[in-house]
Amino acid sequence: MKKIDDKIILVTNDDGYLSKGIEALIEAVKPFGHVVVAAPVLPHSGMSHAITVNMPLRMDKLEENKDVEFYTISGTPVDCVKLANYLLFKGKKPDLLVSGINHGANSSTSVIYSGTMAAVIEGCLYQVPSIGFSLLDFSHNPDFSASVTYVRKIVKNVLENGIPDDTCLNVNIPKLPQEEIKGIRICRQNKGVWREEFDSRRDPRNRDYYWLTGEFHNLEPGAEDTDEWALHHKYVSVVPVQIDFTAYKIMDELKKWKWE
Amino acid sequence: MKKIDDKIILVTNDDGYLSKGIEALIEAVKPFGHVVVAAPVLPHSGMSHAITVNMPLRMDKLEENKDVEFYTISGTPVDCVKLANYLLFKGKKPDLLVSGINHGANSSTSVIYSGTMAAVIEGCLYQVPSIGFSLLDFSHNPDFSASVTYVRKIVKNVLENGIPDDTCLNVNIPKLPQEEIKGIRICRQNKGVWREEFDSRRDPRNRDYYWLTGEFHNLEPGAEDTDEWALHHKYVSVVPVQIDFTAYKIMDELKKWKWE
Repeated sequence: MKKIDDKIILVTNDDGYLSKGIEALIEAVKPFGHVVVAAPVLPHSGMSHAITVNMPLRMDKLEENKDVEFYTISGTPVDCVKLANYLLFKGKKPDLLVSGINHGANSSTSVIYSGTMAAVIEGCLYQVPSIGFSLLDFSHNPDFSASVTYVRKIVKNVLENGIPDDTCLNVNIPKLPQEEIKGIRICRQNKGVWREEFDSRRDPRNRDYYWLTGEFHNLEPGAEDTDEWALHHKYVSVVPVQIDFTAYKIMDELKKWKWE
Repeated sequence: MKKIDDKIILVTNDDGYLSKGIEALIEAVKPFGHVVVAAPVLPHSGMSHAITVNMPLRMDKLEENKDVEFYTISGTPVDCVKLANYLLFKGKKPDLLVSGINHGANSSTSVIYSGTMAAVIEGCLYQVPSIGFSLLDFSHNPDFSASVTYVRKIVKNVLENGIPDDTCLNVNIPKLPQEEIKGIRICRQNKGVWREEFDSRRDPRNRDYYWLTGEFHNLEPGAEDTDEWALHHKYVSVVPVQIDFTAYKIMDELKKWKWE
């Protein structure tokens, strides 16, 4: 693929710098310019928007060649974005932030728990066009070939069109060979909830401990405008995400309550 | 204060079970019924919606009397809500979840980083009416007396009126004696950003390390409908928060892009 421009692209993830997903994402965005990777040393799945305030951070340069600078950071995905912005970009912004490719879905309400999407939201707070990519395959070594194609389609669109301020994109990709994927759908976040079933065990000293398990329950399985529906029907889902969490629709109602 | 009803109230926080803030919150909600506390053992400020997936959790009963059951949990604020729902409520829901009182503000975009508000959002996902309370005082032992008054006002309203599905409340309280607080304002989330200034140091082995510091920049200081404005003008701010992060306003624009 021929280089189509010379953007500066910040790449991060939550599975850590050794994951196959970040390798695939770097390959996918290389044709768009110079790639700066700032990835967590350790996996941080489920870390959401956590930041490290009680420990200092370390940053190490792993490699640098003409296309890619690769740094590892000892913190969370959000720490990576913050430290990269401060130390590597020194106030100048990258043209794009991409996070992932996550090993596993970040659709529906999983966006709330996702370290991948937290890095994206952090990029959005810095007013950098930011996109998170997740493949619906939890395995160690998934086939990312279709993902790379769709990452490029979406990145090209974002570099050409921009993303409106205070919004970013959450992209999920079904676990399918490219010829079976039907295309891209713009969706809303599906209503759903993780229902926990803690696995209760007893340690050798006879004390209980609990492993978090649970499964996702789709609360609106028939809704055709959601990301869950799109993924189930073999589409790549693109959900625009906003950083203003205000529930405007209930403000008038709240104002009517007896406050004094 | 006389008991006005017999609700079951789940209390948690992100500063840990020993904080003065959770003590004040328990006192504030006791008049409304039976209180079940499920609080983190350790402080978890800045932990956002992190969950613990690589370690098991522990829960210990600290005390139980006729008004209050007190449990400590080894995980994050969100872990506390999940484990309490599973082990203590066993599928039955509490009538209310309250989180805090946080030592320090969770207004504006701090809602994204806040462990206090993550517990509240988790309660909302479980369809429990949920409220987070934060006092604009970072000190170890703030004066929570005005806070207690406002917690009771707001809890009373929520128990009487409910909160619409998929929404919860983010309450911030100015650091002022009660007679100087002007009342309660329903607000939207202020646009703002934390600008980082990492404090860079060198360790005895001559390697660099970085402490996260930084300060909040208000991007719309004049906007009278925001929580920052309300707090600055001596009001208690109440921001309704939603768990649907979809940026509906840009969906039509995205659909026009060239996707194939």
